[in-house]
Amino acid sequence: MTTRDDPTVGELSEGAILRRILDRLGPSAALVGPGDDAAVLTVPDGRVVATTDTLVHGPDFRLAWSSAYDIGWKAAAVNLADVAAMGARPTALLVALAMPDDTRISFVEALADGLRAACDDLAPGCVVEGGDLTVSDTLTIAVTALGTLDGRAPVLRSGARPGDVVAIAGDMGVAARGLELLFARFTDPDGTPNALTPETFVERLVDSADAAAVSRQLRPRPPISMGALAADRGATAMMDVSDGLALDATRLADASGVTIDLEARWLGPDAARALAGGEDHALLATFPSEVDLTGGFMRIGRVRDRADAALLVDGAPYQERSGWDPYRDWDAGRG
Amino acid sequence: MTTRDDPTVGELSEGAILRRILDRLGPSAALVGPGDDAAVLTVPDGRVVATTDTLVHGPDFRLAWSSAYDIGWKAAAVNLADVAAMGARPTALLVALAMPDDTRISFVEALADGLRAACDDLAPGCVVEGGDLTVSDTLTIAVTALGTLDGRAPVLRSGARPGDVVAIAGDMGVAARGLELLFARFTDPDGTPNALTPETFVERLVDSADAAAVSRQLRPRPPISMGALAADRGATAMMDVSDGLALDATRLADASGVTIDLEARWLGPDAARALAGGEDHALLATFPSEVDLTGGFMRIGRVRDRADAALLVDGAPYQERSGWDPYRDWDAGRG
Repeated sequence: MTTRDDPTVGELSEGAILRRILDRLGPSAALVGPGDDAAVLTVPDGRVVATTDTLVHGPDFRLAWSSAYDIGWKAAAVNLADVAAMGARPTALLVALAMPDDTRISFVEALADGLRAACDDLAPGCVVEGGDLTVSDTLTIAVTALGTLDGRAPVLRSGARPGDVVAIAGDMGVAARGLELLFARFTDPDGTPNALTPETFVERLVDSADAAAVSRQLRPRPPISMGALAADRGATAMMDVSDGLALDATRLADASGVTIDLEARWLGPDAARALAGGEDHALLATFPSEVDLTGGFMRIGRVRDRADAALLVDGAPYQERSGWDPYRDWDAGRG
Repeated sequence: MTTRDDPTVGELSEGAILRRILDRLGPSAALVGPGDDAAVLTVPDGRVVATTDTLVHGPDFRLAWSSAYDIGWKAAAVNLADVAAMGARPTALLVALAMPDDTRISFVEALADGLRAACDDLAPGCVVEGGDLTVSDTLTIAVTALGTLDGRAPVLRSGARPGDVVAIAGDMGVAARGLELLFARFTDPDGTPNALTPETFVERLVDSADAAAVSRQLRPRPPISMGALAADRGATAMMDVSDGLALDATRLADASGVTIDLEARWLGPDAARALAGGEDHALLATFPSEVDLTGGFMRIGRVRDRADAALLVDGAPYQERSGWDPYRDWDAGRG
């Protein structure tokens, strides 16, 4: 493809790039949408939920594995999950995109398509209402998600009480399995990522569970609508599982001053990976024991009085170092 | 200073870095502040103003010239200006910080101090209520600012009407003069930026106007409180001047379907620089001609019926190519 058909962002003006992006996004649902100094959004109950999360080329994605569409999808999904984890409904995204000036406009358009598709699919009614474009040596997408509680009380991490049931909605360890498969089957012997294409995907991921795991790693599907549902059913605490069930359950237990006791038999066929693996963005919640969990949430344990350990598995302290910490864990690879 | 006294972020956990940052920020004013999946903010009139703007090492700042405090200040200030430009009062920032893992924690703390100081100074009551930390090869700070209209109608770019007065609050061309001075006096012969320190600052910026210009470039002071004031006085259109008065006045004129006619004699001693120079984040507004402009806003021109040219200076079309476009203008230097 020639540069003329698919110019780089360095060959276009900021305004021209912006127009190409806006053409891909859905119609604004705001009082003031993209194009002014700021967006103005209605928040009928007088409270707005707001969160931000960034994907950086290298620690958060490899261009050999993630398409632009995947990156847009994931950047939306991880932020939508943080809004859902408060018991809220996402209503708007703001997207700050910093990219090298040799980035093709087709890449930017596919990224916008991924953002829109994730919103349409996971959080219908949520729209990109603003953003910012700049250049950078490192492709970076910082998304802010806003949402509404529709009159509900926010569900905090700190509300779990002894006797509550611990439950989860969404995948456990699937995204981590996908990442293992990418490292195992989509790298050269020296560790350099090599290209995931429709052909290599089909060829190297014959098992449908493997294919699904890689898909989930690249395009996570957090159960966004379950967040408000959990709040309506009386969830006492909730958070999204981004850094691994064990690490995030420990955070919830610490915030609530309780101990969480998980039952390994409820953690699926590979409990170790379910505990350690991050990036599923499942919703971890606690409910009063009398709540009926049918529909979405699955019981995985019980809240106990605070003991020495914040987290038990089948009654024994969980000892594994687990979870992803960008400052400790990134190996500086990009690909 | 040894690593033990001032560890890098790569030597600390995400949680430890976060605690160091939170210690520097003011107390939360939100229903739910930092520490949960998302913040929850009150917006009494049921509308929230939201904007995002990113500073990237290289195109947006040089580490030889900007201290961490300066970077934090500027990242806050440019976002506060976008909220003010809607006629709103900033209430909260979310800060996504992506940094190399050899960044010293003292640098991160100074950046947090700069964020807080800009809020306290320019928009009292506005607090950092959330954020995100990640690693990146390129130091990047993406800020989202939220604000409230306190019952006012938002002031758009599109409301200017023929006969209105064009006015500005804030600096014109001062930040651009500061940037020229940095390139002229703080670079090696080959163009590499060299260090701005208290000593080199005093030594090379003997003229107090020069010193002030460099200070304004590094720590802009947009007149944040003037935004709501302009709305209260009946401003018909408003925007912040980030990319140069000529370019931004053209945008406002195009959005409103009018022509703006500026008078050079009102643009200060160096009208050319006032027109071309960006980064002052002054507030450009239009008012019905009968409005009393005393206090903050200064008349600089008149809105006319739309003519061929969107922008006139003393009645003649303004022809200079001006303003900063990151995709066209960044030379890939960092320093």
